Amino acid sequence: MHTLDGTELIKQFDIEHLKTNVGRVVTINACVHKIKEMGAFAFVMLRTGRYVVQSVYTNEGCKAPLSDIKEGYYITATGKVREEPRAIYGYEIELNDFTVLSVPAEDYPLHVSARKLGCSIEANLKYRSVALRNPHERAAFKIAEGVCEGFRRFLLQNGFTEIHTPKIVSAGAEGGANIFKLKYFGKDAFLAQSPQFYKQTCVAIFDRVFEIGPVYRAEKHNSTRHLNEYIGLDFEMGYIKDMYDVMNIETAMLKYVLEYIKAHYQNEIEITGAKIPEIDKIPTITFLEAINIVGGSKSKHDLEPADEVKICEQIYKEYGSEFVFITHFPSAKRPFYAMDNPDDPRLAESFDLLFRGLEITTGGQRIHDYQQQVEKMKRMNLNPDDFASYLDIHKYGMPPHGGLGIGLERLVMKLLNLPNIRQASLFPRDINHLDP
Amino acid sequence: MHTLDGTELIKQFDIEHLKTNVGRVVTINACVHKIKEMGAFAFVMLRTGRYVVQSVYTNEGCKAPLSDIKEGYYITATGKVREEPRAIYGYEIELNDFTVLSVPAEDYPLHVSARKLGCSIEANLKYRSVALRNPHERAAFKIAEGVCEGFRRFLLQNGFTEIHTPKIVSAGAEGGANIFKLKYFGKDAFLAQSPQFYKQTCVAIFDRVFEIGPVYRAEKHNSTRHLNEYIGLDFEMGYIKDMYDVMNIETAMLKYVLEYIKAHYQNEIEITGAKIPEIDKIPTITFLEAINIVGGSKSKHDLEPADEVKICEQIYKEYGSEFVFITHFPSAKRPFYAMDNPDDPRLAESFDLLFRGLEITTGGQRIHDYQQQVEKMKRMNLNPDDFASYLDIHKYGMPPHGGLGIGLERLVMKLLNLPNIRQASLFPRDINHLDP
Repeated sequence: MHTLDGTELIKQFDIEHLKTNVGRVVTINACVHKIKEMGAFAFVMLRTGRYVVQSVYTNEGCKAPLSDIKEGYYITATGKVREEPRAIYGYEIELNDFTVLSVPAEDYPLHVSARKLGCSIEANLKYRSVALRNPHERAAFKIAEGVCEGFRRFLLQNGFTEIHTPKIVSAGAEGGANIFKLKYFGKDAFLAQSPQFYKQTCVAIFDRVFEIGPVYRAEKHNSTRHLNEYIGLDFEMGYIKDMYDVMNIETAMLKYVLEYIKAHYQNEIEITGAKIPEIDKIPTITFLEAINIVGGSKSKHDLEPADEVKICEQIYKEYGSEFVFITHFPSAKRPFYAMDNPDDPRLAESFDLLFRGLEITTGGQRIHDYQQQVEKMKRMNLNPDDFASYLDIHKYGMPPHGGLGIGLERLVMKLLNLPNIRQASLFPRDINHLDP
Repeated sequence: MHTLDGTELIKQFDIEHLKTNVGRVVTINACVHKIKEMGAFAFVMLRTGRYVVQSVYTNEGCKAPLSDIKEGYYITATGKVREEPRAIYGYEIELNDFTVLSVPAEDYPLHVSARKLGCSIEANLKYRSVALRNPHERAAFKIAEGVCEGFRRFLLQNGFTEIHTPKIVSAGAEGGANIFKLKYFGKDAFLAQSPQFYKQTCVAIFDRVFEIGPVYRAEKHNSTRHLNEYIGLDFEMGYIKDMYDVMNIETAMLKYVLEYIKAHYQNEIEITGAKIPEIDKIPTITFLEAINIVGGSKSKHDLEPADEVKICEQIYKEYGSEFVFITHFPSAKRPFYAMDNPDDPRLAESFDLLFRGLEITTGGQRIHDYQQQVEKMKRMNLNPDDFASYLDIHKYGMPPHGGLGIGLERLVMKLLNLPNIRQASLFPRDINHLDP
């Protein structure tokens, strides 16, 4: 028997460690990212979990021979830190020794140390565990971490409760055929298309809630903007006057998230060249106004991808905003739980948020009254009996409420101007990719 | 067209709001939790998302008639705050008006306003959306929020990257038959039994990672300690010397989590009467030592639930610790990715953590060398070809590494001394429950 007290922790490398140790010898665990032989010396670029650090090898200065390492080896290196304005981050390490910890069995099939990976998306996905070692590729996931953390911190500070709801469910939230089916101990079950029913349920419990979790859509799209499993950033809140209360929280949250990313992910912003937008005010237009912008007729019931691009261009030109809310979609195109507009029930109290030409959010006010919800289900040819446990929340009471869902990968894709949403998902799931 | 700037946000009620407004009129959105008529006046207990606040109704003091409200109604109430030492939290509101926002269609089928719900677990699950409105029931989920937030903050501060990995996968991590199957665009797919393969992959990318996400086990258990969908708190880290580096991080993390809960969830600790343990040092014993404690023979290959209880009792008696690590389980009982002990390959470099008689963590060092992993797979009668994309991480290199998984609901169950793990899951999934 012995004991552990949690005081001797191995530390993660941080770039600050170089700045505070100029002139001293440091030890660093890293992967050999690239070796550039320069004749009398060599640059050995050391890849840590977040940074690529420059070290300099010389025969005289280092005990271990350079021939002991190759790209892809994992080593522990020691050396003195010096300032070097030409090095990235402004510091480099004069190597005086290293130990090899682990040797790969084969060379990388992709050019990991290139500034950009440069291979096809198919090769990228085939060798995903290698592709993600490229600093430019992996940077998107630190930005994604920042989006989640900003979202979460803002909502926790505003009294939201973080929840975890089941992804194996007995009924779809959005309806339709785009739903993955499975057998659950002999019963038919589905993978959740959104946490919609559960987050509404939780409004009656915690007043305001949020969840960050997977969402499943069995759509046969094979586009650059669809995934079949993605991460939903969802929140739902009670005691709203109308959907603008939800939109105001989203506006404040997005401001917070963008500031959070700028404060904590400058390294990844520089690696990717991302332009993080400023939010002052977000314009909000109605669906009819949106249709006017795209020059379509009033008979149009939904927006096409090309419409979203055109609307964003026009709004940016007129108001300088890269975000725009669109409200009052036709009720027929919104889910059965959407609250209808009190003045014109053909319109729903629901909205989308577009960012740089892409819809990243859908939200709105929900029906909270039991009779009203049952009647709308019937009008939409749904059988209320199929939604019995969901309708319990209306039957036993809940406050006026609304909320929204944001697609994490879409937001990250647009923040980083990525050409394909798959580069914003660590291990994307699409119609052709289930592995790795 | 108009704009939103995110400055006018509706606020969530916080108990601090009463303390800072003594003598002033406040407005509060709440559910009518309970009405206690006292003759000349009535207590109207107001349930907000986290607190139940006492208000006092009198005919003279309040414009609206008491008969306008019943338990379960959602209202906006106004009134003057006064100190009242006999009230919970030490404050109460003299009601001067209220407006009804929403009226339930039926009375609650459960006694929501009772201190403890007092119904059977079956009734609790049948009317889950009502049961969770009971302040004692819902408190577990604020504690769960605190566990996640403490886990996350500690790991982010220690250089871990938060990741999201797919839950639809092409192969199980743990193997065995306990896996949910589904069709994925014509291919066979499964629900992930753990993020094991992906978090290992991510060690080669980010050095250290964590994930909080759902985990699926198709086990036919119907016990008080098993769920078929639960939340896994997982981390994995590179550059470890041995599994004790992982155990030390877990020890420090648990200390942080428990302090975080005590600092932020005193309200829920009081509601539930939870005893949050202190961690000084965590004892660590080998599997053989554990078997000696339970008086079993050396031929025993695993611990039974009763063994875990007995071991924890003994460790608490001897060392005063409610946690105990057990190391060096027989290799045959650990997964194929477990590193074998260099001195005795019949033992694995893996561990469990027991807390109050229940296993809450499994972890260990993993194999990082390609040949070693392929050979162990063959020894265990697995076909390496079935794990080709997983083996890419070994083939193309990764540092020595290890990690662990913690079951969120088990940890919360034991922290709150709940009799059934279903009370630590908002909408539990077990062999009989798929709905709500």
